[in-house]
Amino acid sequence: MDKTFDALLARMHELRDLGGVIGLASWDRETYLPTRAHEARSHQLSTLHGIQHERLVDPRLGELLAWASEAPGLTPDQRAMARVLTHERNRAVKLPRTLVKALAEAQSQGLHAWREAREERRFARFQPALSRLLALRREQADAYGHGGERYDALLDEYEPGMRVARLGPVLASLRDTLIRLVGALQAAPRQVPELFQGRRFDTEAQWRVSLRMLGDMGFELDAGRQDKSIHPFSSGLHPTDVRLTTDLDEHSLEGLFSTLHEGGHGLYEQGFQPAHHRTPLANAPSMGLHESQSRLWENLVGRGRPFWTHYFPLMRDTFSEGLAGVALEGFLAAINRVTPSFIRTAADEVTYNLHIVLRYELELLLIRDELPLDELPAAWNERMRRFLGITPPDDLQGVLQDIHWAWGEFGYFPTYSLGNLYSASLYAAARRALPGLEEGIARGELRPLRDWLRDHVHAEGYRLPAEELVRKVTGQGLTDVDFLAYLQSKFGALYGVTL
Amino acid sequence: MDKTFDALLARMHELRDLGGVIGLASWDRETYLPTRAHEARSHQLSTLHGIQHERLVDPRLGELLAWASEAPGLTPDQRAMARVLTHERNRAVKLPRTLVKALAEAQSQGLHAWREAREERRFARFQPALSRLLALRREQADAYGHGGERYDALLDEYEPGMRVARLGPVLASLRDTLIRLVGALQAAPRQVPELFQGRRFDTEAQWRVSLRMLGDMGFELDAGRQDKSIHPFSSGLHPTDVRLTTDLDEHSLEGLFSTLHEGGHGLYEQGFQPAHHRTPLANAPSMGLHESQSRLWENLVGRGRPFWTHYFPLMRDTFSEGLAGVALEGFLAAINRVTPSFIRTAADEVTYNLHIVLRYELELLLIRDELPLDELPAAWNERMRRFLGITPPDDLQGVLQDIHWAWGEFGYFPTYSLGNLYSASLYAAARRALPGLEEGIARGELRPLRDWLRDHVHAEGYRLPAEELVRKVTGQGLTDVDFLAYLQSKFGALYGVTL
Repeated sequence: MDKTFDALLARMHELRDLGGVIGLASWDRETYLPTRAHEARSHQLSTLHGIQHERLVDPRLGELLAWASEAPGLTPDQRAMARVLTHERNRAVKLPRTLVKALAEAQSQGLHAWREAREERRFARFQPALSRLLALRREQADAYGHGGERYDALLDEYEPGMRVARLGPVLASLRDTLIRLVGALQAAPRQVPELFQGRRFDTEAQWRVSLRMLGDMGFELDAGRQDKSIHPFSSGLHPTDVRLTTDLDEHSLEGLFSTLHEGGHGLYEQGFQPAHHRTPLANAPSMGLHESQSRLWENLVGRGRPFWTHYFPLMRDTFSEGLAGVALEGFLAAINRVTPSFIRTAADEVTYNLHIVLRYELELLLIRDELPLDELPAAWNERMRRFLGITPPDDLQGVLQDIHWAWGEFGYFPTYSLGNLYSASLYAAARRALPGLEEGIARGELRPLRDWLRDHVHAEGYRLPAEELVRKVTGQGLTDVDFLAYLQSKFGALYGVTL
Repeated sequence: MDKTFDALLARMHELRDLGGVIGLASWDRETYLPTRAHEARSHQLSTLHGIQHERLVDPRLGELLAWASEAPGLTPDQRAMARVLTHERNRAVKLPRTLVKALAEAQSQGLHAWREAREERRFARFQPALSRLLALRREQADAYGHGGERYDALLDEYEPGMRVARLGPVLASLRDTLIRLVGALQAAPRQVPELFQGRRFDTEAQWRVSLRMLGDMGFELDAGRQDKSIHPFSSGLHPTDVRLTTDLDEHSLEGLFSTLHEGGHGLYEQGFQPAHHRTPLANAPSMGLHESQSRLWENLVGRGRPFWTHYFPLMRDTFSEGLAGVALEGFLAAINRVTPSFIRTAADEVTYNLHIVLRYELELLLIRDELPLDELPAAWNERMRRFLGITPPDDLQGVLQDIHWAWGEFGYFPTYSLGNLYSASLYAAARRALPGLEEGIARGELRPLRDWLRDHVHAEGYRLPAEELVRKVTGQGLTDVDFLAYLQSKFGALYGVTL
């Protein structure tokens, strides 16, 4: 066998092209697929995944990677490419086919049972399927290997290198402070009224505004697009082909924030450097770091005063009826209103991470087998009370609310909080590096921030693990300090309290 | 190796899924791909084609097919599946990799040279590249094998089973009669005036009309879609996912006819029976037979009096300005106006096939190496004069007009004429089988025709070669009799002459 880096690169390109096509077929499924074609598309995706897996575990790829791990004369980027692919391949090789099949069946049963349980608003209906999924995930974690903490092996799928020992204390600290902040804000003498109820915002106009914001952010619409789908998502088929979706609702402006969110993901995908295209380096090192970019644009920029100083006049012209009688101050308060709620997806910046920590704590107990499953609904509700002061009226709004567990997905939720924490650290670093950043944003100048993120985060690709990259850019690794300082400053001012 | 039909079927499914995904990636390239993503898409398509080819030539597939060719107890459909795939595989296996690579390079050079030649309006600029392409196509034909007529081996790619010895006399007869008809129509005392110049037809309204016509035809919009692209095409990703495109122009109603054309292709794809899905039987047996369905709906139905008896009132309501002063009779005459022209794509039903025969005759001479290349433009122009009585003003409107030869594609053009001939025979058979068919069409009832075609043509899939299938349905094989009778009757009445 010809052992050269070009031979390895050809295999990387092939895997990457397959990934792009899988991305296309998945994107199309959510946007343009005819309703009756879902079964055909499932077959096609299954075939593509099968080929991708076969290519990944091919022993000759293993030989090439083994060669590359010791070959002299490779560049640092070439070494990083081989390292990333080796990590991915090792995980795939360790997973027995029987387990993959059992998991697929259990996931299908899990979804079915979860849907029935939701109909009945009764967790017990879902419990046996969840039990089976947990057993298989533990088995999967053992197949991957870990140092005694199975959750680490699952977390690694989404957040390579992150460990419970590192993550747990940070999330515990975040949780305690957030509980305190929520209490203080609820007790604040100045409260923020709901503003949007009963108002209407033409969705065609929202579509135009969202495309303008994307363009202003520096999202390149000749190397990507925006379409409509029921749940917004972003999909990087290739750095020149980054597809975002949005879901606009005439009774709300939330669609604009979801555009900023997906746009943040999209800028990351477009920012991988050409030398990394079609290689494992054209990737974020973790889901959490990817999420940091979406949350940065959605919240730290998109719910901030500078941003709306520029855009609010446009909004008032565009939605003169919908925003009748609303001034910038009222608008800013309304889009930052803090209200404990049952559902994460509707949560504000302060309460959001409490939803995540709640799940993380429960996931950890479940994977450790330290929480009997029939106590899960009570454990959920107890934490909701302790963290947010509210009690779900039933399992539907409690433990059954989300599809992730029905799919047997554990280890993913923490990436949302990591995204929030990293976003604040990166934004703080950007402000230090770019004096006048927010004055510029208030004039509609979003490109300097995009360029700084591109240079320092996006163009790095997957050269370094997420936390190392963040440390390189900000001077410190994972921490809740920047995030909490941001919340305290912003929401303290908004609610007229010292946090 | 496990030699069962299920093992073979799994490979058929995989190949078919790959074909569907290639179809998706190609469709997306013409509809929604961001402008800067073309290079990435080329890589993705090249990777998919490579995997598809590798799967097709896999020796284990060869063993399974050899087993199936002799295995007892297979159903007739299973035998047909194996036979079709064996034919496809044999062609792929016979093509040396070096030739595939040389062809790809020559095609790329051919396109480049053709574009330059068009700029200069000078065939000589294109001649060396065309010479190379012809040499490689002859080599390819020899690799496939043939009984002395190389063109047969190329024709077989698009029209399996068809041979020059069978096709040539039919096209020669067609040519001679058409030359006579064109002359007679030009000499007819009643001439049809141009009608559409200077009129405007809102493209949004055309879009709605086109979707309505597709629905009326029985094209299932929950198992397919229509989008916009520069050149209209149809693409069957799967029988539940059939995608048509159109290009609407406010100065013309031609887009509606292209919708009927692509809709005819689309009905064929949707009509494959579920038992054949994801197998080689969910295919038309030839391009000519596929084209028969598009031409049937575009011309025999879509340019006929019964069709417009129903739709013209709707058109007059929809395009009250654009069709001001136009009555059904004038409209019917205008959409059937016969005018010799230089370009096939703009040709009417009478002159169209003369463009095809012209190219077929030249292709045959070129592949046989019986026409020196520097005499090609003169040979083209001489035939244009003899067939249509007009002389191209330059090579751009003559021999350089079309991209097919620049791409080295020979053997494809005859399928257009085969489509026209088959369409007339099939429509005549439908009229015999369905008394009152055209009275029904005049009431807007298009489904009986769709259902008849589905039962007798579409649901057959690739069980039989094209001509055998046509013989089974109509009682006769390839013939120009029905087509010429159709032209003589329709255009004789229109121009007030006996043809």
